[in-house]
Amino acid sequence: MIGAGRMGQAHARVLAGLWHCRVVWVVDPAEARASAVAAELGAQASSHLEEALQDASVDAVIITTPTPTHAQVVEAAARAGKAIFVEKPIAESLEAGKRVVQAIEKHGVPCQVGFQRRYDPAYQRARAMIEQGALGRLEGIRLVGRDPHPPSLEFLKTSGGLLVDMGIHDLDSARFLLGEVLEVAAIGGALAEPGLREYGLFDTAVATLRFENGAVGTLEVALRTAYGYDIRCEVLGEKGRIHIEYDRKPQLTLYDAQGGHFDRPRNFEQRFAEAYRAELEAFAQNLQAGQPLKPDAREAWYSLRLALAAQQALETGQVVQVAALGSLE
Amino acid sequence: MIGAGRMGQAHARVLAGLWHCRVVWVVDPAEARASAVAAELGAQASSHLEEALQDASVDAVIITTPTPTHAQVVEAAARAGKAIFVEKPIAESLEAGKRVVQAIEKHGVPCQVGFQRRYDPAYQRARAMIEQGALGRLEGIRLVGRDPHPPSLEFLKTSGGLLVDMGIHDLDSARFLLGEVLEVAAIGGALAEPGLREYGLFDTAVATLRFENGAVGTLEVALRTAYGYDIRCEVLGEKGRIHIEYDRKPQLTLYDAQGGHFDRPRNFEQRFAEAYRAELEAFAQNLQAGQPLKPDAREAWYSLRLALAAQQALETGQVVQVAALGSLE
Amino acid sequence: MIGAGRMGQAHARVLAGLWHCRVVWVVDPAEARASAVAAELGAQASSHLEEALQDASVDAVIITTPTPTHAQVVEAAARAGKAIFVEKPIAESLEAGKRVVQAIEKHGVPCQVGFQRRYDPAYQRARAMIEQGALGRLEGIRLVGRDPHPPSLEFLKTSGGLLVDMGIHDLDSARFLLGEVLEVAAIGGALAEPGLREYGLFDTAVATLRFENGAVGTLEVALRTAYGYDIRCEVLGEKGRIHIEYDRKPQLTLYDAQGGHFDRPRNFEQRFAEAYRAELEAFAQNLQAGQPLKPDAREAWYSLRLALAAQQALETGQVVQVAALGSLE
Amino acid sequence: MIGAGRMGQAHARVLAGLWHCRVVWVVDPAEARASAVAAELGAQASSHLEEALQDASVDAVIITTPTPTHAQVVEAAARAGKAIFVEKPIAESLEAGKRVVQAIEKHGVPCQVGFQRRYDPAYQRARAMIEQGALGRLEGIRLVGRDPHPPSLEFLKTSGGLLVDMGIHDLDSARFLLGEVLEVAAIGGALAEPGLREYGLFDTAVATLRFENGAVGTLEVALRTAYGYDIRCEVLGEKGRIHIEYDRKPQLTLYDAQGGHFDRPRNFEQRFAEAYRAELEAFAQNLQAGQPLKPDAREAWYSLRLALAAQQALETGQVVQVAALGSLE
Repeated sequence: MIGAGRMGQAHARVLAGLWHCRVVWVVDPAEARASAVAAELGAQASSHLEEALQDASVDAVIITTPTPTHAQVVEAAARAGKAIFVEKPIAESLEAGKRVVQAIEKHGVPCQVGFQRRYDPAYQRARAMIEQGALGRLEGIRLVGRDPHPPSLEFLKTSGGLLVDMGIHDLDSARFLLGEVLEVAAIGGALAEPGLREYGLFDTAVATLRFENGAVGTLEVALRTAYGYDIRCEVLGEKGRIHIEYDRKPQLTLYDAQGGHFDRPRNFEQRFAEAYRAELEAFAQNLQAGQPLKPDAREAWYSLRLALAAQQALETGQVVQVAALGSLE
Repeated sequence: MIGAGRMGQAHARVLAGLWHCRVVWVVDPAEARASAVAAELGAQASSHLEEALQDASVDAVIITTPTPTHAQVVEAAARAGKAIFVEKPIAESLEAGKRVVQAIEKHGVPCQVGFQRRYDPAYQRARAMIEQGALGRLEGIRLVGRDPHPPSLEFLKTSGGLLVDMGIHDLDSARFLLGEVLEVAAIGGALAEPGLREYGLFDTAVATLRFENGAVGTLEVALRTAYGYDIRCEVLGEKGRIHIEYDRKPQLTLYDAQGGHFDRPRNFEQRFAEAYRAELEAFAQNLQAGQPLKPDAREAWYSLRLALAAQQALETGQVVQVAALGSLE
Repeated sequence: MIGAGRMGQAHARVLAGLWHCRVVWVVDPAEARASAVAAELGAQASSHLEEALQDASVDAVIITTPTPTHAQVVEAAARAGKAIFVEKPIAESLEAGKRVVQAIEKHGVPCQVGFQRRYDPAYQRARAMIEQGALGRLEGIRLVGRDPHPPSLEFLKTSGGLLVDMGIHDLDSARFLLGEVLEVAAIGGALAEPGLREYGLFDTAVATLRFENGAVGTLEVALRTAYGYDIRCEVLGEKGRIHIEYDRKPQLTLYDAQGGHFDRPRNFEQRFAEAYRAELEAFAQNLQAGQPLKPDAREAWYSLRLALAAQQALETGQVVQVAALGSLE
Repeated sequence: MIGAGRMGQAHARVLAGLWHCRVVWVVDPAEARASAVAAELGAQASSHLEEALQDASVDAVIITTPTPTHAQVVEAAARAGKAIFVEKPIAESLEAGKRVVQAIEKHGVPCQVGFQRRYDPAYQRARAMIEQGALGRLEGIRLVGRDPHPPSLEFLKTSGGLLVDMGIHDLDSARFLLGEVLEVAAIGGALAEPGLREYGLFDTAVATLRFENGAVGTLEVALRTAYGYDIRCEVLGEKGRIHIEYDRKPQLTLYDAQGGHFDRPRNFEQRFAEAYRAELEAFAQNLQAGQPLKPDAREAWYSLRLALAAQQALETGQVVQVAALGSLE
């Protein structure tokens, strides 16, 4: 485990429950945090990355350090010949992302990026249905991604922007399910936190997407949602529509004199618990079986490119051609 | 229109909107009420049944008078050669019901009984699906019939009992969708209105049903439902299940910090508006086309027999063999 | 009744069922059609508008003639002092629409425009909830309007465009529930009927909307939907979200070895039957009570302006400022 | 781990993922199976119960051996002073169950019985809502428990009967949410597997329940369900109703020309995965915190008594007074 913060601990808890997996090292510059997590897991703690990377018994690393460190940490792990699981986004810029891809390909190590929605049972089923032709020719998508509460202003100032930090999940889903986006246009505002305006920041955005195959779609992303966490994805085709939505937690409805009432999911842990587990299971199983990892760093780079294009559209008010941002080829 | 009460007025409003239909007479012993309703419809009013029945321009009568008068009114209308629509139940006893059936058959007039659920789009679709074999062999049923508020004690004392007055709708649905019932057992109580106990009355009952084909089912009927009007019907077969439920009125959900919320239907007008319209449309169209009317008086008699058997089971605590109550053959 | 086509006949069937209402004249240039409909209703037929307008017993006219005739017919009816119900859109252009508004205001007659969704129980409940503050400050909207099948190419060439003929319903709902739109951007394509491209026509469009109050929203309109008729409207506010969707027709679910299955509504008659009835009931009742009619011609003109702006955005690929199209003031 | 069969392995996988927990011994008379499971867990294997019980480092045992062995195994573990988690039902008869309760109480060890539904988020939320008074006075319950496929005839012959082996889950839920049952009546049949009749076995049953507080309810249990696994629980009170149902897996709906379609859960692992995890988490956490375990052996004994009463009613066709079967007091 490289990084022992909130996401790292969540992954550690999952890993501890996977058969054939054992956490050997917990690495974090904050030594006390590393030690505490390591103690829980019966692992060793270190504040030095190289110490863990030199341990030949380590097969793979799980990287949950801050995004700007990804390129350097991935490079070191790749050099050491370790398999890599790295959180999304792969890097903070397309250039840094390119360095990550090159390091991985140069050292020939397997790498998986943490777009957990691709492992959610509903998204997986959608992809399988689409591949089996349930929708016929694909014609559209509707994406909604709403967080319950905005993060701190400090975080927002350095997060890369609403459509990069948060929208990248929805945009990666669009690529996973429908294909490549040609151009994107967006408008938005600071509706939940008007104070964001003075920093040129947005907490709400809507966009239109035009895909290579001619399909068109809409995207909505927001940072404050009174009714909880709301992630939806609808794919439209000539033969029908797939609708993904998690509306009810738990499986209970109360009916009283005011009508019917149900609880909604409030955060990503509630919505995607199964996906977070499944992506690490797949990582471990595919490594053991010598199968390729998915999504890999190249996939993640193209999703980052799309997110940066969308953010540019939002900030400039101009339609952005996605390919104009560059390519890995 | 024979009878100008609440149900009669509701039917009159529907009839006024059917093409090729015109209300000619409104008959009610309460002359003022007859006149008021007749004026609205551009019809003549009378307090004498025979006056309307002697009018040769009258093709059909809609009977919504109190149940104990059904036998006599139907007999008079049949003698006059009029087509008949009569509200459920066909009569207050199996003997009176038998007189109704005999009068209709003797005079050869068409007769339809007002089991409107048989004309609800969901029940019709269920029946069609079952006939097409969607469920395979039928194996069970689950019936729920809950009114929002109990009627007055005065009404309850003379209504024939919970499972006759109210349960007959659910039991008729059971016969419509699954077939004949062999035996019934029931328990219940006065949970909403404990004062009913001293009159031996029930406001809540649950029952088990055993069908001729071996299927078994449950029934729940109650007179007070805090969350509105709740009519459900599920039919089970070897290949699947059909579930009928009207849960949401209107087609709107509110999501807020407490979760999701929707309005429920509150009464039979909201739930069965379309069915009340459809049963009269079918009555008019089938008469004009010379097609048989459904459900007819014999059907209604057998549903009454089942309801009386269920009520007897509830009151005695004994399993009741339905056929023991007699037969029309 | 001015106009005895499909929409006119539908309205006539509803009117025939409203108490206190009687259809006196059916006017249509196609004499045979006028006569046939008139005969059903016990009304007189005419192919001359003035004949009916001169009848002093006529209180109101229902206009369902082709859109380009609206200005002239409304003007004649207003001059004759009749109350007016006219189908949407109020006119084919903002100039013709302005003439309609002026005629009505000059002659002081009441006028209602046929935006039936404003009378759908769900939209009405949404408006009431919003006015009661259930959502707090309004921040967004998501609109989906999908027809099952495209109309004929002949119709499409003269319909005024996808976002005028069809999108105007969704855009009117946006104004009804959220308020005025400042600017609109749109992209689209001919996905269902590629042959439309040579005529510069669209069968699919997605748009972003920016509202006067800062809210942002998305709109999707399409002419072919394999899974039926799909009209959705979601309004977002600081305190929550209202979701309007009619998903299931009838109230029945089939569960079998392949999972659960339900029928969807296939056309506007199934979805909005209640709204079509309610708008005419309101028309009749408000006229009788001397209450103002809603939505009136001015409302309809502003919805037309928004629809024309959206269509312009779709055709030009430019963001369109709605107010730039002019104003009634 | 005492018992390394299917249920034991499922529990072991969960335990391996709980922090602060470690599996030390895997005991199973089938030595190879014990060894295989132990190897996965890094534990020792044994075919002798006493070997593991004498290990002082063992704090607790998880017993998943066949029901008829429960009394003896629990007694041994209690004598050794170990905390106990034992699968439901606590024993095959009320007498054997009484011995279990006595052993536990004599040795003062904590004991939890595996009624996992009590740890399902929906059942837990229901209980909390009821305790907070959301339903007011409780008046009824509707229970449905349907397995997808019948087990083997060999198993059925020794399982204790449909309403004991399978119905005990629903009946325990009834006690958990509504309280004690006074009397039960039941009918049923062998509808899925007619061959069961010659052994006096049932694959389908419906029952009515009368509760101590006057409430009445229905229960349906079946062993073959074409559409999957169907567990429902509705609690009715004077103020409303709680409805628990898990209908859709995953969170995806397909809409096509035939309407809407969704996948259903097919087995208890899919439905109750979270509950199986939560009951062991609670077991571990409560042990560590010195809190009492729930449900305990007494609770389990009373649920067994109710299940045996229901089975007796089904087999005899007679109403059974639950208390007539005896008591622990």
